[in-house]
Amino acid sequence: MEISDWRKKIDELDEQLVRLLNERAAAAVAIGQLKARAQTPIYEPQREQAVFEHVRAVNPGPLSGAQVQDVYERIMDVMRSLQKQ
Amino acid sequence: MEISDWRKKIDELDEQLVRLLNERAAAAVAIGQLKARAQTPIYEPQREQAVFEHVRAVNPGPLSGAQVQDVYERIMDVMRSLQKQ
Repeated sequence: MEISDWRKKIDELDEQLVRLLNERAAAAVAIGQLKARAQTPIYEPQREQAVFEHVRAVNPGPLSGAQVQDVYERIMDVMRSLQKQ
Repeated sequence: MEISDWRKKIDELDEQLVRLLNERAAAAVAIGQLKARAQTPIYEPQREQAVFEHVRAVNPGPLSGAQVQDVYERIMDVMRSLQKQ
């Protein structure tokens, strides 16, 4: 496969990734609304830690656990800002 | 649905996301090897820009375009560091 073939594959993966990130975001918004109703805080460090542990545990590679967590730290930042909107 | 149900759904989405991120990483490694053979640089700002435009174009929401790009900036950082390993 040439670079252009790999890039076509990456573009297809990105379409799936963007769809899943938005499904995750919709679930985070739903949780944010339940938390607002129950007057519990948006930021729950224990839950974030559990998410990091989960994604590291299911990571098959070639990304390292630290690299997956790097991506997820940004994902969690974005989800939190969406819940506060 | 309660918070625990949404979190179960999020955990399932995260498993799919981690799988796709690693498929993307494997493709990036393949591109890195082709680039090394051709002695072309790893960092190609035009391609990164095209990736950002693509993911913003296919973004259905509720994430904003800026939020999707925020996540992708981290993804691209991680992919670049993997290609240099």
